[in-house]
Amino acid sequence: MKGQELFRKFRDLEREIHAYNHVLSLLYLDSVTAAPSDTAAERGETLAYFTKKQYELTAGEATVELVQNLKEHSDELSDVEKRELEVFSEELDYLSKIPCEEYVEYQTLINDSENVWHKAKLENDFASFAPYLERIVDTTRRFSKYYKPELDPYDVCLDQYEPGLSRKTADTFFSELRSKIVPLLAETQKKAQPQNVFLFKHYPIELQRKLSDELMRLLTIDRTHCAIAETEHPFTLEFNRNDVRITTHYLEDNVASSMYSVIHEGGHALYELGSGKEYEMTALSGGCSMSMHESQSRLFENVIGRSLPFLSAVYPTMQSLFPEQLKGVDCTAFYRAVNRAEPSLIRTEADELTYSLHVMVRYELEKALMDQTLRVSDLPEAWSTLMREYLGVTVPNDTLGVLQDSHWSGGMIGYFPSYALGSAYSAQIMATLERELDVPALLAAGNLLPITKWLEDRLYRHGRRYKPSELLEKVTGKAFDPSFYTDYLTKKFTEIYR
Amino acid sequence: MKGQELFRKFRDLEREIHAYNHVLSLLYLDSVTAAPSDTAAERGETLAYFTKKQYELTAGEATVELVQNLKEHSDELSDVEKRELEVFSEELDYLSKIPCEEYVEYQTLINDSENVWHKAKLENDFASFAPYLERIVDTTRRFSKYYKPELDPYDVCLDQYEPGLSRKTADTFFSELRSKIVPLLAETQKKAQPQNVFLFKHYPIELQRKLSDELMRLLTIDRTHCAIAETEHPFTLEFNRNDVRITTHYLEDNVASSMYSVIHEGGHALYELGSGKEYEMTALSGGCSMSMHESQSRLFENVIGRSLPFLSAVYPTMQSLFPEQLKGVDCTAFYRAVNRAEPSLIRTEADELTYSLHVMVRYELEKALMDQTLRVSDLPEAWSTLMREYLGVTVPNDTLGVLQDSHWSGGMIGYFPSYALGSAYSAQIMATLERELDVPALLAAGNLLPITKWLEDRLYRHGRRYKPSELLEKVTGKAFDPSFYTDYLTKKFTEIYR
Repeated sequence: MKGQELFRKFRDLEREIHAYNHVLSLLYLDSVTAAPSDTAAERGETLAYFTKKQYELTAGEATVELVQNLKEHSDELSDVEKRELEVFSEELDYLSKIPCEEYVEYQTLINDSENVWHKAKLENDFASFAPYLERIVDTTRRFSKYYKPELDPYDVCLDQYEPGLSRKTADTFFSELRSKIVPLLAETQKKAQPQNVFLFKHYPIELQRKLSDELMRLLTIDRTHCAIAETEHPFTLEFNRNDVRITTHYLEDNVASSMYSVIHEGGHALYELGSGKEYEMTALSGGCSMSMHESQSRLFENVIGRSLPFLSAVYPTMQSLFPEQLKGVDCTAFYRAVNRAEPSLIRTEADELTYSLHVMVRYELEKALMDQTLRVSDLPEAWSTLMREYLGVTVPNDTLGVLQDSHWSGGMIGYFPSYALGSAYSAQIMATLERELDVPALLAAGNLLPITKWLEDRLYRHGRRYKPSELLEKVTGKAFDPSFYTDYLTKKFTEIYR
Repeated sequence: MKGQELFRKFRDLEREIHAYNHVLSLLYLDSVTAAPSDTAAERGETLAYFTKKQYELTAGEATVELVQNLKEHSDELSDVEKRELEVFSEELDYLSKIPCEEYVEYQTLINDSENVWHKAKLENDFASFAPYLERIVDTTRRFSKYYKPELDPYDVCLDQYEPGLSRKTADTFFSELRSKIVPLLAETQKKAQPQNVFLFKHYPIELQRKLSDELMRLLTIDRTHCAIAETEHPFTLEFNRNDVRITTHYLEDNVASSMYSVIHEGGHALYELGSGKEYEMTALSGGCSMSMHESQSRLFENVIGRSLPFLSAVYPTMQSLFPEQLKGVDCTAFYRAVNRAEPSLIRTEADELTYSLHVMVRYELEKALMDQTLRVSDLPEAWSTLMREYLGVTVPNDTLGVLQDSHWSGGMIGYFPSYALGSAYSAQIMATLERELDVPALLAAGNLLPITKWLEDRLYRHGRRYKPSELLEKVTGKAFDPSFYTDYLTKKFTEIYR
């Protein structure tokens, strides 16, 4: 067979794999949004069955042979096709080094583990979750060794979420961030804090749902292709570029919590909805890397969502939904409240300044778990110690501590740095955007379409066509430079706390 | 291979098919409860892929051969195993007579059709749905001819939902029912109607959700294995006996609508949750037939749910949830209101007396469509004519007329008689139950567990072990006798309208 003939066969295979991805993602979505609590065992059987099928299609003998053949004909492929083959091969390469049974067993473990974590969090019961986390850490180490035995296992994890990232580059990045954030935060803590009690009044969930609709509208998200579900820990999931789901978690006594989670997940959704049509059902569909994905969620959540111009566009709706709760609170006061910098317990509700410190706590602990210098049983204490050291807060229980995030129970070790790196990307991207568009005026007018179109055109539509570093340079004309982020934070918080 | 060896292979196959059923059902559930509106096309691709796989497993050559081999060794099988093989063979027999591509095409059509129906109902636009219904009727006729060319196509449909049912037996049943119901209804219409305006006050959906929780609790439904979702047209769906989903539709100005739909679907759920563990993931799991299934939904909805003792148990909760709406309304007044017999437009909200007339309208129209004596384009007019003739009501539009139910858009032609037949079964079953337990006392005490346990033990746990007529006789000691139902209706409505 010639190259193009082989490539058509390869495309058919990608479509098949896409069908398996669809139902596996749907089983996951169902499990965390709609399924009754005691159904993990039976779902696990279905999951195991389809995971095995997916594995065989992605990394089975026939696929290995097809990809090998195709590589031998790669001179007949276009650059885009070559890249598609490259991205696919990476996944194949990873999977094919893990024995199928171990891979299926691990996916079943994750299904159980998420169920156990969910209950453990509600009941503040770390002990029930610990054996699952132990197995997850062990398996992650083992799989990393299978995949790239020559590398440090945690480096393998980092590189899987953000190609090119290692503990060395992450250490440098975090240390630079810390050196700017810590003194900046200290400065703010000397000043009078903005009032924020009104954020914690009673906000009926039915009305918060209406606010979500308005936020989605402002973000120009097409609701005929994007739904909101409710879950313990918010996330975004895409079945394809025409079917994206975000989730949120409403708290009756905290209006900012779901508000910013909807804007955050909305950023992820925009990225997926804008992915190039030509890449549909191929290895190039979706987001370029997790940091690039988080750059969009964090861009909308913070750089846009916590800006005064954007808030001035959404605030009239909020005042009409919550006239009593926001009585006597003007938009500037609201803006200052949602930007109040202050050490706290929960990452997803942290302000922009302290946020990266929350990430660093998780980064240090992940490293130690993967290095086997920290045992899972000692994790809650290590968590408390680092939270005190980095943020100066006392962790009262594991629900508000080590059990707060769903990542580790979902097997995502090495993901957390993406949030900080993504935040830094977002500042660099916004600096470019602001040179080309009058962003504050557009936001104040509630007219975000030129902004989301710009992002779609410059970033989203490329899918995984480029590596993250290439894409960032393509979008911003510059290599990654974290000083955009630290400059942005310095300017913003100096102004708010002057 | 010996019989038992072959049977183990057969069981493995059933487990595989079960995994496909799980994800195909989940794709359906997602499409009608959570998916954004414009996602049917992409879901259709996944659906087509897995439908093909499911077809191949159920009716492909390897399966045909295995089942044939097994039949030759059937003397080595137990009676239960023989029945399991028989039920499986019926499905195989049906599918294997339909070419795979046609079957997949039909499932894709259904996916599109349900999406189109949903919008058509909201927009009162029958014309947009008509071409889909035409194709569904044509395909149903064609498939019936493939399956049993010697039979009348509509008889084939009836028999698929209720083994043994034909237009001849259905005609007899409906004519008997009509001869009792029509004069009984006429009698009630001469009397003063119970007040029911309070049912149509403003009932906030949040509070109706709380009422649903209380109803589920009273029905002894284990919520760790059964969830409620919201959808346009309520239904129940089971992935397995440990994972059952019901759906409902809340109307802000009608408290009885969702209340009785939750109790109705709750009855279906109890049946599935009580299916014998030993039949799990085999052809014998789940409900015996659709009429037997509807006997349980209708038993709980009406015989129990619209009884004074049951209402006396739930009414205190209702009064505390809706103190303003139910001010000055005592439980007896509420009981009389939800039993007000009166011709109306919507089947699912009809009282017990007029309900079967709604079913008969659909039955007559289905017959005519399948006989090709009625064209789909003439259906709305035929609907209006029959509604006037049978119920004396004028249909103002198709949303409240021919578009109200989801069955035809879902390909379910021949299903409707199950509701009336099931209602009749339910009266016969309740007559037996009342001989063995003090049902009114248990209901009044809100203690339904002895009742649901009795039903589980006598009916639910048998799954598809017996044919419906056998099972009914096993449960009640008698062959099916519709006079239990007409006697029940006569007694109940004579008392209410005396």
